[in-house]
Amino acid sequence: MEPIAKFREIVKKQKAYGYMLNIIGWDSQTEAPREAFARRGEMVGIISGEMFKLLTSQDTIEGLGQLFESMDQFDDATKRELLRAKKQLDKIIKIPENEFVAYQMLLNKAQMVWQDAKEKNDYAAFKGVLAEIITANKKFAKYYAPEASAYNTMLDDFEEGWTMADFDQFFDVLKKELVPFVRKLLAQKQPPVAPFVKRHYEKEKQKEFADYLIDVMQFNRNRGLMKQSVHPFTWNTSPTDVRFTNRYIEDYFLSSIFSAVHELGHAIYEQQVDTKWDDTMLNGGVSMGIHESQSRFFENIVGRSHLFWEAHYPKLKSIFPEQLKDVTLEDFYRAVNRSEASLIRVEADELTYPLHIMLRYEIERMFVEGDLSVDDLPRIWNEKSQEYLGITPKTDSEGILQDVHWSGGMIGYFPTYALGSAISAQIYQTMAQEINVDQAIRDNKLGIVTDWLKEKIHQYGSSKSPKQLLEEVTHESFNPHYYVRYLKAKYGELYNIKED
Amino acid sequence: MEPIAKFREIVKKQKAYGYMLNIIGWDSQTEAPREAFARRGEMVGIISGEMFKLLTSQDTIEGLGQLFESMDQFDDATKRELLRAKKQLDKIIKIPENEFVAYQMLLNKAQMVWQDAKEKNDYAAFKGVLAEIITANKKFAKYYAPEASAYNTMLDDFEEGWTMADFDQFFDVLKKELVPFVRKLLAQKQPPVAPFVKRHYEKEKQKEFADYLIDVMQFNRNRGLMKQSVHPFTWNTSPTDVRFTNRYIEDYFLSSIFSAVHELGHAIYEQQVDTKWDDTMLNGGVSMGIHESQSRFFENIVGRSHLFWEAHYPKLKSIFPEQLKDVTLEDFYRAVNRSEASLIRVEADELTYPLHIMLRYEIERMFVEGDLSVDDLPRIWNEKSQEYLGITPKTDSEGILQDVHWSGGMIGYFPTYALGSAISAQIYQTMAQEINVDQAIRDNKLGIVTDWLKEKIHQYGSSKSPKQLLEEVTHESFNPHYYVRYLKAKYGELYNIKED
Repeated sequence: MEPIAKFREIVKKQKAYGYMLNIIGWDSQTEAPREAFARRGEMVGIISGEMFKLLTSQDTIEGLGQLFESMDQFDDATKRELLRAKKQLDKIIKIPENEFVAYQMLLNKAQMVWQDAKEKNDYAAFKGVLAEIITANKKFAKYYAPEASAYNTMLDDFEEGWTMADFDQFFDVLKKELVPFVRKLLAQKQPPVAPFVKRHYEKEKQKEFADYLIDVMQFNRNRGLMKQSVHPFTWNTSPTDVRFTNRYIEDYFLSSIFSAVHELGHAIYEQQVDTKWDDTMLNGGVSMGIHESQSRFFENIVGRSHLFWEAHYPKLKSIFPEQLKDVTLEDFYRAVNRSEASLIRVEADELTYPLHIMLRYEIERMFVEGDLSVDDLPRIWNEKSQEYLGITPKTDSEGILQDVHWSGGMIGYFPTYALGSAISAQIYQTMAQEINVDQAIRDNKLGIVTDWLKEKIHQYGSSKSPKQLLEEVTHESFNPHYYVRYLKAKYGELYNIKED
Repeated sequence: MEPIAKFREIVKKQKAYGYMLNIIGWDSQTEAPREAFARRGEMVGIISGEMFKLLTSQDTIEGLGQLFESMDQFDDATKRELLRAKKQLDKIIKIPENEFVAYQMLLNKAQMVWQDAKEKNDYAAFKGVLAEIITANKKFAKYYAPEASAYNTMLDDFEEGWTMADFDQFFDVLKKELVPFVRKLLAQKQPPVAPFVKRHYEKEKQKEFADYLIDVMQFNRNRGLMKQSVHPFTWNTSPTDVRFTNRYIEDYFLSSIFSAVHELGHAIYEQQVDTKWDDTMLNGGVSMGIHESQSRFFENIVGRSHLFWEAHYPKLKSIFPEQLKDVTLEDFYRAVNRSEASLIRVEADELTYPLHIMLRYEIERMFVEGDLSVDDLPRIWNEKSQEYLGITPKTDSEGILQDVHWSGGMIGYFPTYALGSAISAQIYQTMAQEINVDQAIRDNKLGIVTDWLKEKIHQYGSSKSPKQLLEEVTHESFNPHYYVRYLKAKYGELYNIKED
């Protein structure tokens, strides 16, 4: 068999194993009964083992080697695919098996230790495993690329091609331009939270509105579905099967609305990828940052816009006539765009959110590249929180212990959240020059928007790198000023803040 | 590696593949979006191929051969396991691959042809593929066991150890004792269907009652769940994960009640199998007949008993106070035990049901062992329907075309349905001698019953043959007289029929 045909066969088999594990994952997170998990773990272990054997077989390694020798004969997409396959292989085989196994066991333990520590506000109980996780990740990064900075290797895992140099520039802009603006806003006396926000909204009716949003957002119901789970997430195996979940909190209904719009942003991206990439290493959305740019574009730029609620507030009001009877469109718009100093990232508003991320990025950078000890983390966290957000956590549970990421071994993930928001503003800028976005939003014709995104971004799946994609769409490289400008314009108007 | 250790490893890997395909199957039948199926088919094909390779590898074949040579050293359970493994292997490797593939394609086509023919009442369009399916099954049966009667081989696929001789005896008893009784009953003038049966019952409330039945039946919610689907079914991967579905027809609420009880019978059997069989060829319920004995025991003997509704009718009435306000317990009991001549098997009542099966058994026997041509099937069907049920189908759609089984290649499956009912009566007879079943039903303490079933039947999974199991539980071999006696006693009282 030709090496490339052999490669195709291996990729396809890998996809099949992945498909199985994927469906199991969906089932685990949305409905599997509690006592199923022990058996399930065993079964998943065996199939993962088969997949691992396939990916690291002599056939795979030698075949890839041969293909690399004759790289010139392939088109750009295939070249990119081979590079991704090589990266995937190296990520596995460059780590000694015993270290990899020990690390998996460490992560398993860390999950429980972290949960417990967070519950009991006991950072001291967690810092030991955290130190071990950091050490292991640094070591693995060096196995993979001995010459590179460890944090750059980690960042690249979540956002291909993005380095500290890139992120430093980005956060520098935020620090210079956004932090002072936020400080002005937070110095104002805030009106109290509107009472309607905390009223009781029935789950079934919240679901009804989320279901309405599915059509508003042009999600293809023949290629996916919405379900319920503890934490909202989007899940996909192919553009023909994209599912997402939502959750319904009866005394905080705004949560289910913006979760739905956010997840729909992810889901529509996945639905609109060309199925021709299905059997390649180029399927699915290309990176965390680009993915997040789609979800945050819909959640914030579209979903928290005045125009959007001009179109959909009447529908919301018809579903909740009692709860919203004394609430005007204006009240509602202000409530969903309220900004305030807060401690918890996942509850932060659109404006202050990136500052929560900046804090994490700076700390990760320090403990990976510098010599920041885990002993000093809470102090540094709290200082930065005060500096950027004007508020200091009273406990570590609402500070350094709040996020799951580090206990799951995910170091370098956080910055993609802020990057996504910034990219969404840059894309929006281009989009607004090419189509009438405002009118599409107000006229409930988001198909115009999703078609544009499909043509410019979605269809390509992972066949272009995140940087190449962004440059081809917006005709310039990443530029965080659009983001800062967007935030200042919106919140400047809402809070009547004038720039110096 | 020792041959037995090697065997264990292969079985475990087979279980893991099966587990994946199983979850995919559940997902396909309960929620996967429409357009997911093409991709899914491909992925399932690849994994099934891997499983096939494993099951038919030289390693597997030679290993089994070695183990068979030293069979004496193993305990009974392991011996039985090896025999089952050998049977599974022979079923695959004795059929030439090209014939197996052609047959799968035939079945694929047959599904659509049958559906279409049933819709259009066009038996002529179906009989060609039916003849091909019959021919292929006869051929495969002869490949597997050249010396055996083909229909015996087919019967054994669904009910291990059961032959035509056994079934002939069984149906002979029904023909002699039940058919005349049914004829007497059907000769009576029937009161019309009670109006409350056809009233409108909201889906959500039907679900609420089904959910109540889950607890009544002592189903373990940490090891399973109930969901919705087009046709009710039970599904399991291990005793720790047993799921079933129900459906809710708003103008026929009795359907969801008895479907739930029926499926719960299957589900509780699977939940109570000892998990020690999980990684062996002896996991899960042992046969169709024994399985059906559990579902029909709960559906009919328990679920349609007066005692059961003494306990649960008040609850049902509290959920549907409007629809049932003029309906007494007595009215309800009679309505759920109404017997009448009917054409459609799946809608038949408890009393006439086995006669629907007898008709199918006799026809299968004729077209496999005799020379009955597919051309003559509708005529024979209609004659037997008139003879046993006193009613002749007006169209083939409500006669010979009504069931999916033959188009799916399932020949020899039908008789297990009637067998299950008969076995349930025999088991009930023993159970009633050992525990106070009536009191347990009336006092809503079905745990006493399910514990007994666990101890006597469920825990053993497939580690005993169906015949052995039945004999050990009831201290005699299969005896259909208990079944006939039970039916005559119950319906004799309901319809005031005296035996000659």
